[in-house]
Amino acid sequence: MWVAAPTANWSACAVETPEQTLAAARMARAAGASLLRGGAFKPRTSPYAFQGLGEVGLKILADVREETGLPIVTEVIDQRDVELVTTYADMLQVGTRNMQNFPLLQAVGAAGKPVMLKRGMSATIEEWLMAAEYIAQRGNLDIVLCERGIRTFENATRNTLDISAVPVAQRLSHLPVIVDPSHSGGRRDLVLPLSRAAIAVGADGIIVDVHPHPESALCEGPQALIDADLRELASVAQHLSPLVGRTLTPAPATAHA
Amino acid sequence: MWVAAPTANWSACAVETPEQTLAAARMARAAGASLLRGGAFKPRTSPYAFQGLGEVGLKILADVREETGLPIVTEVIDQRDVELVTTYADMLQVGTRNMQNFPLLQAVGAAGKPVMLKRGMSATIEEWLMAAEYIAQRGNLDIVLCERGIRTFENATRNTLDISAVPVAQRLSHLPVIVDPSHSGGRRDLVLPLSRAAIAVGADGIIVDVHPHPESALCEGPQALIDADLRELASVAQHLSPLVGRTLTPAPATAHA
Amino acid sequence: MWVAAPTANWSACAVETPEQTLAAARMARAAGASLLRGGAFKPRTSPYAFQGLGEVGLKILADVREETGLPIVTEVIDQRDVELVTTYADMLQVGTRNMQNFPLLQAVGAAGKPVMLKRGMSATIEEWLMAAEYIAQRGNLDIVLCERGIRTFENATRNTLDISAVPVAQRLSHLPVIVDPSHSGGRRDLVLPLSRAAIAVGADGIIVDVHPHPESALCEGPQALIDADLRELASVAQHLSPLVGRTLTPAPATAHA
Amino acid sequence: MWVAAPTANWSACAVETPEQTLAAARMARAAGASLLRGGAFKPRTSPYAFQGLGEVGLKILADVREETGLPIVTEVIDQRDVELVTTYADMLQVGTRNMQNFPLLQAVGAAGKPVMLKRGMSATIEEWLMAAEYIAQRGNLDIVLCERGIRTFENATRNTLDISAVPVAQRLSHLPVIVDPSHSGGRRDLVLPLSRAAIAVGADGIIVDVHPHPESALCEGPQALIDADLRELASVAQHLSPLVGRTLTPAPATAHA
Repeated sequence: MWVAAPTANWSACAVETPEQTLAAARMARAAGASLLRGGAFKPRTSPYAFQGLGEVGLKILADVREETGLPIVTEVIDQRDVELVTTYADMLQVGTRNMQNFPLLQAVGAAGKPVMLKRGMSATIEEWLMAAEYIAQRGNLDIVLCERGIRTFENATRNTLDISAVPVAQRLSHLPVIVDPSHSGGRRDLVLPLSRAAIAVGADGIIVDVHPHPESALCEGPQALIDADLRELASVAQHLSPLVGRTLTPAPATAHA
Repeated sequence: MWVAAPTANWSACAVETPEQTLAAARMARAAGASLLRGGAFKPRTSPYAFQGLGEVGLKILADVREETGLPIVTEVIDQRDVELVTTYADMLQVGTRNMQNFPLLQAVGAAGKPVMLKRGMSATIEEWLMAAEYIAQRGNLDIVLCERGIRTFENATRNTLDISAVPVAQRLSHLPVIVDPSHSGGRRDLVLPLSRAAIAVGADGIIVDVHPHPESALCEGPQALIDADLRELASVAQHLSPLVGRTLTPAPATAHA
Repeated sequence: MWVAAPTANWSACAVETPEQTLAAARMARAAGASLLRGGAFKPRTSPYAFQGLGEVGLKILADVREETGLPIVTEVIDQRDVELVTTYADMLQVGTRNMQNFPLLQAVGAAGKPVMLKRGMSATIEEWLMAAEYIAQRGNLDIVLCERGIRTFENATRNTLDISAVPVAQRLSHLPVIVDPSHSGGRRDLVLPLSRAAIAVGADGIIVDVHPHPESALCEGPQALIDADLRELASVAQHLSPLVGRTLTPAPATAHA
Repeated sequence: MWVAAPTANWSACAVETPEQTLAAARMARAAGASLLRGGAFKPRTSPYAFQGLGEVGLKILADVREETGLPIVTEVIDQRDVELVTTYADMLQVGTRNMQNFPLLQAVGAAGKPVMLKRGMSATIEEWLMAAEYIAQRGNLDIVLCERGIRTFENATRNTLDISAVPVAQRLSHLPVIVDPSHSGGRRDLVLPLSRAAIAVGADGIIVDVHPHPESALCEGPQALIDADLRELASVAQHLSPLVGRTLTPAPATAHA
């Protein structure tokens, strides 16, 4: 099971074009990632911001999986899209703004695919576990919790990574807990140190934004890793994992990569 | 327009039985309320808590409107219910956990009824206005913002009423802003002072929980006002409103009340 | 006792020159203020910011009291200055950064003058009352609590005025609680609405920054009221106070004003 | 310089008796700690809580240093005690509640001993660095910053360890930054994972509470490590440090240990 180890699960934030997505996936694959996250539906604070490519994006992701062998995780923000997304994705993501969107939780709980549940940006750990319960109640116990930073007064970082939430949630629930250092910090220069902290604290995985050309990304560019960063991260993960009793999951075998 | 004045909009938190709802509505009506909020669908942190009566609850609300003449506001938490709820309610409420549930915002935006948008419990004022923009974008400009307390470190109150948000949001948007002192404080003894503060700061309305027998309420009992509190609140609202240049909207005429 | 009523206690933030201080005091006096706060020692985040005039400032304040009859409140930030400040001031202020400076609390507790204790910017109400206990323990029960906003994620205002803290602290302690709408909001346009909210919630006083020429103030200019604002505030206070069962304390008689 | 490496700097929270302090120091010494922190003056929220032994405590610490060779760090909370504390301690600690006690910062800045400056529990990183500037301005550049958790809405932990603050403060200031996992988490079971995270993120040291018999400690018992924990932590630190390019500083040689 991919989440049983501090695997590094690199992700392109948004699916923009087939070329950019494939390039990001190859970067991730080369660095040993076990899954690829790509956003086809993007929840945005403003209705005027880039909202994602929708089904076109899902198809790009499926093609990229075909090319690289990397299973894909993608966010679903509308319960009416659960069926559609399920036909393409290997894992469904529920985002931070939807952590207490109870009908959506129930819909993904019934979809028969693993679910990654991001913590609400001001949700307590207890509320987060209760949200997971909405999924589990529909018979789906294949849930991965993702700590992605909480909202505090500090504004040197986009959010405050609550690193303590990892062991706390692990003890209360036995669900795997992964960490998203890209969205919590919001700064590329923090991704590597926060990834090290996540692995060392005992996280069951990390998920980071990558982009072949961050300077031209449609969103999240400032926090995306480039190829060299990614190789360094892979090397760090390789060395740190055994110290916390983990072995890196080898990436799944693929036909073409 | 009811929201043009610091009207007191009393609400029974959850619709439990026809008798309890009618009794609460009569309390509200007698005290001069201009709308009645009742919850038929309740978003609850735990999947095991009372989730509301659903359509049965909506029918009770409609009957109570028939009896008392009070228009009804009710929360919708699932976009698939928007059509159903719209056939019963005079105004739709989007709750704090759904403030960034974008498909739901779009659905209520298209429903052709006024919308009350509660502030997310850790949403900035800017994000709140952006959420309203999702509704407005569908052609519905009849939006009322409701400040209901934000999440902070202080735990003497359930949430921290951000009283400053009222004038700030009014200046940035020209939308009416009402205040929910019951959910922000979470304590009955704070409802009256916080209601006074809300009216004095210039809020366009207040919405408070009432219950004929709070000690036996299925939820929110500890913060619900009883009849005597409500009469005092009505009297306070009557006297304070003119000092901030408002006149209380008279409750709509009704056949039976 | 001046704090027994929602008196408006206007303050010039920092004492800059005798002329500016006297002008501000006359504005305050004309508007009915009962005390004047002026800062001779300013606690500043940066060691390179204007730190106040020290004893020169205290002398200016004493002269201004002589001219206007307004008693003066001034902050003490160093326990070695308590004796000096006590010889000039009618009331000592402990600022938000020093709320848990326990030796300072004990020193002002022993000084024999009333103390205004500002709430720490992230102190719970319980910690605030415990801080007051450090003063009371030295035999000084003449303590006024001042709510001045807490630190939250919201940045539309400098701090978030915790209006609920007023009734909560009043119930737990029986000490008078006043509100500082200038420092909590940090914006001139919020001072009047927040002052109305403070009086209506039942505060025992308000304290606002005034400046004859805010555009040239050495600090806090953006939030200082000018003369016209102050007259409006005085009028509002006059009308609102009776509605919450208070009467405005008449300003103390003076020889020269 | 001890702070140049992720050394584990174990500390007994409060000095209670010579026997308890010596036992704790021996535990720390055996585990490779390079300094011992002991509290002789304890800042406590309530004036009725145990306030520390004062100079008696300082003498105990000096005796324990004599026995074990471990240099001592101790908190000073009153600027009048700086001279006294300086005669006993090798390093002065300014605690979280005093981070903006400017006269105290200036006094320790002039004392000629290294200073450990704990972050205020709701201080931004920028304010923390500005506080350090007050010390530096007096000519003392030997300052160690200590991240000890910030105040947020989450209450599963006593404070929220802001792990990102370590690399952020290191980049902005070049001062060493250490982490206190005991006070941030407030739970013994979190000390080890948070220590690993701190070392991995690149902290220049960690400081943890130890107690030979935590169940009978006068304060902070629930978070203090016992001997077995400490040995495990020492082993972890030994293995993790090289992965982030650090080597553990050997403990200073001593006559008796």
